[in-house]
Amino acid sequence: MPVKPFAVIAGVGSGTGSFLARRFAKAYPVALLARNPESYEALVKEINSDGGKAIGISTDVSNEESVKSAFKTIAQAYDDVPCAAAIYNASGGFVRKPFLETQVEDLEKGWEVTVKGALFFSQATLPLMLRHAEDQSAEHPPTIIFTGATASIKANAQMATFAGPKWALRAMSTSLAKEFAPKGVHVVHAIIDGVIDIPKSQEMLKDISMEARLGPEDIAKTYWNLHTQGRRGFTNEVDIRPMMEKW
Amino acid sequence: MPVKPFAVIAGVGSGTGSFLARRFAKAYPVALLARNPESYEALVKEINSDGGKAIGISTDVSNEESVKSAFKTIAQAYDDVPCAAAIYNASGGFVRKPFLETQVEDLEKGWEVTVKGALFFSQATLPLMLRHAEDQSAEHPPTIIFTGATASIKANAQMATFAGPKWALRAMSTSLAKEFAPKGVHVVHAIIDGVIDIPKSQEMLKDISMEARLGPEDIAKTYWNLHTQGRRGFTNEVDIRPMMEKW
Amino acid sequence: MPVKPFAVIAGVGSGTGSFLARRFAKAYPVALLARNPESYEALVKEINSDGGKAIGISTDVSNEESVKSAFKTIAQAYDDVPCAAAIYNASGGFVRKPFLETQVEDLEKGWEVTVKGALFFSQATLPLMLRHAEDQSAEHPPTIIFTGATASIKANAQMATFAGPKWALRAMSTSLAKEFAPKGVHVVHAIIDGVIDIPKSQEMLKDISMEARLGPEDIAKTYWNLHTQGRRGFTNEVDIRPMMEKW
Amino acid sequence: MPVKPFAVIAGVGSGTGSFLARRFAKAYPVALLARNPESYEALVKEINSDGGKAIGISTDVSNEESVKSAFKTIAQAYDDVPCAAAIYNASGGFVRKPFLETQVEDLEKGWEVTVKGALFFSQATLPLMLRHAEDQSAEHPPTIIFTGATASIKANAQMATFAGPKWALRAMSTSLAKEFAPKGVHVVHAIIDGVIDIPKSQEMLKDISMEARLGPEDIAKTYWNLHTQGRRGFTNEVDIRPMMEKW
Repeated sequence: MPVKPFAVIAGVGSGTGSFLARRFAKAYPVALLARNPESYEALVKEINSDGGKAIGISTDVSNEESVKSAFKTIAQAYDDVPCAAAIYNASGGFVRKPFLETQVEDLEKGWEVTVKGALFFSQATLPLMLRHAEDQSAEHPPTIIFTGATASIKANAQMATFAGPKWALRAMSTSLAKEFAPKGVHVVHAIIDGVIDIPKSQEMLKDISMEARLGPEDIAKTYWNLHTQGRRGFTNEVDIRPMMEKW
Repeated sequence: MPVKPFAVIAGVGSGTGSFLARRFAKAYPVALLARNPESYEALVKEINSDGGKAIGISTDVSNEESVKSAFKTIAQAYDDVPCAAAIYNASGGFVRKPFLETQVEDLEKGWEVTVKGALFFSQATLPLMLRHAEDQSAEHPPTIIFTGATASIKANAQMATFAGPKWALRAMSTSLAKEFAPKGVHVVHAIIDGVIDIPKSQEMLKDISMEARLGPEDIAKTYWNLHTQGRRGFTNEVDIRPMMEKW
Repeated sequence: MPVKPFAVIAGVGSGTGSFLARRFAKAYPVALLARNPESYEALVKEINSDGGKAIGISTDVSNEESVKSAFKTIAQAYDDVPCAAAIYNASGGFVRKPFLETQVEDLEKGWEVTVKGALFFSQATLPLMLRHAEDQSAEHPPTIIFTGATASIKANAQMATFAGPKWALRAMSTSLAKEFAPKGVHVVHAIIDGVIDIPKSQEMLKDISMEARLGPEDIAKTYWNLHTQGRRGFTNEVDIRPMMEKW
Repeated sequence: MPVKPFAVIAGVGSGTGSFLARRFAKAYPVALLARNPESYEALVKEINSDGGKAIGISTDVSNEESVKSAFKTIAQAYDDVPCAAAIYNASGGFVRKPFLETQVEDLEKGWEVTVKGALFFSQATLPLMLRHAEDQSAEHPPTIIFTGATASIKANAQMATFAGPKWALRAMSTSLAKEFAPKGVHVVHAIIDGVIDIPKSQEMLKDISMEARLGPEDIAKTYWNLHTQGRRGFTNEVDIRPMMEKW
């Protein structure tokens, strides 16, 4: 019987990450990473009681040791199986301020999570994906998806410290796609363009129609569909936006 | 009972178009357009005998009257139902030659099919999609997908007359996406990057591994998945390439 | 004594073209092409009486014979000298209208002038530039500059028929840059982003500050500076916008 | 008599920086920043003895205090005059290695110099440029130019840690261009695409023709010409490559 690989999602909370977790948990045991256990505890319980398999690991993705430790925990919990899907959904906070009022900390925050975290996460998952890529019985090629934003392709005024790390992440994703596709790993950069309809956006969204909001369930479905692409047809970049979005 | 809408595919032959036709025929009655009836006759027969519903219409997409006439035929055959999905898969032939040996005809050929044809096709399908967008019971938002190529985003030496029309098509798709999304129509530009594994490429592909070839079935699956995206999560551009493709 | 090469500017009127003509006439005999002789007559007179050398030729750039005939006239007037600089400043008219009200003629107009005209113009000038590129005593590498617009890199709603040809022109310029640079010809695409401060824009600009208007003299200066770049440092694309432009 | 503003160049050595310094020193007193005094000592002497005015300041651009201290030194040396031109020519070292052999240090090096350094440098120069922008007698709008690379727009395999910071810098430059242009400051991102013909590249270039090498004097001339653009015609991005470059 083929070994059941796992999926890992970094950046899980009450928002998109929870929809991603539920979707991928239908197919794989999942490992959910977030700094704060409160971000995943209820979700882990929900998935496990719905017949799925989930563990949550308190992880600071911007800290190399913390990421390594998380993957040791995963290996122990899931018997060292390979990795089928990894989603990097962590992000530094949104910053918009006049450049001359910007502090290096504003830039660093985005950098630490968006870029360094993506490096640590990729380095931890890729070897486990290369193993999965060699498994002839694998249902889908192993897939790593990086969640980007409007600011991954635009750099508006007062957004220098937010867009910088996002553009860097897009570069990293593109480079990894080219390096690892020939080895059977599918790398995707997703440009999430719009305000997602999640609890923490409710105040911002209160006067906005449902169709002007990005559905977290729509994002989860698209990510899953990307994961199911075969070796003869990888998508390396998608944009996703609600129908009322201006772009 | 809700009216069953149709899907239309322009540019059907022994290649990608036939896979698209088979995929969309699982869900909708399909209309297949090609200049030469030989391109669709066997396929129409196959779909109809497999339990689907298909008609083929000999159409010159670069001729406005021919396109209008095709849509009249569709309306008659399918009782004037709205349109759920339209795929513009027609393309002028590939041209690569030194610019000073280029003739205006080389440019015109691509222009006629890639750009003018896309205009006629879009103008014929969009009103039928706007009707479908108003149908509250519709399963998926109406979707129009334009098939692009590597040359839609690159313009290499000796490719001026091929890339020109492809870039124009991408502009047109982008503009339509912005104009029609708020009205509920989903517009996608697909960058097909690689040589597709279809009968007419066999000679070119004979020394190339399966995983360096784009699978037409993979393209069809991705197009279908794009069509199933909801109003709160439209993708407007994807790239699709085989894992061994260099880009 | 080295042969004095000529410069040619297609699309000369009371606007940017006249500033380009005056600037390049300081260095070279110039040939000014416009459909309507009224567009260049006063300018030709002005340049000739200011000590420069200019001829005007009534030309329909979208007509191959007309372009060929214009270059025969130039060869006769200027003793068959090579070409040092060619500026393609012609453009189909601006179109913004709902896509379903668009006619194929709206698209054709832009296509004819923006794309086909650029093909004819390039095919006429490039051989004369290749000759100049071989002239060891030439002061600057021969340069062909295509005038693009905001719509060369954006494709907003209701702009499908305008942006299409502009994107095609950009593709063509990029391809020519790659094909002809190794032969010593410098090809540039200029993205003119903003409303130019020329007589025909006065109504549109009347409430707009000077610094929100693109200066035609600024464009001319930048084009000239691009022409003076040496073989070890070609720029193939620039954007030019006034300081108050939002982008 | 109008106050003579200064120009500052970060990243000066035996290469491009020295050509930039000489060019801008023809018009302004210059301040040259490099970590190692050996990088600027001879050049400072040369400029001063050729009739220009130059100071060199040992600066670690990735260290906020070091940058602030450098600008205090400049203010003292040049009587607190405003800044006319600032060139950020510093760059982390080139890295190309398999991603799984990459260390966070490889990424950090590029980040520190390419991105954080650009932030500190911009924050130090922009207030001095805003002052210059208000000077009605200023000959040219104040200009800040960021030196990018091929990797600013491409992200090839094994280049994740090099391209990441470069893309981030491009985002930052774009954002600053939009924020500060309306205040009269001209911001440019220059894509330097090719190997520059400078002493440290000699080994790499030894079998390569002169016309396949980027001329540092060509870069300096183009930077200067960009600086002379007026408020009604700013270029915010250029590419520069030698005629034999493949792209």
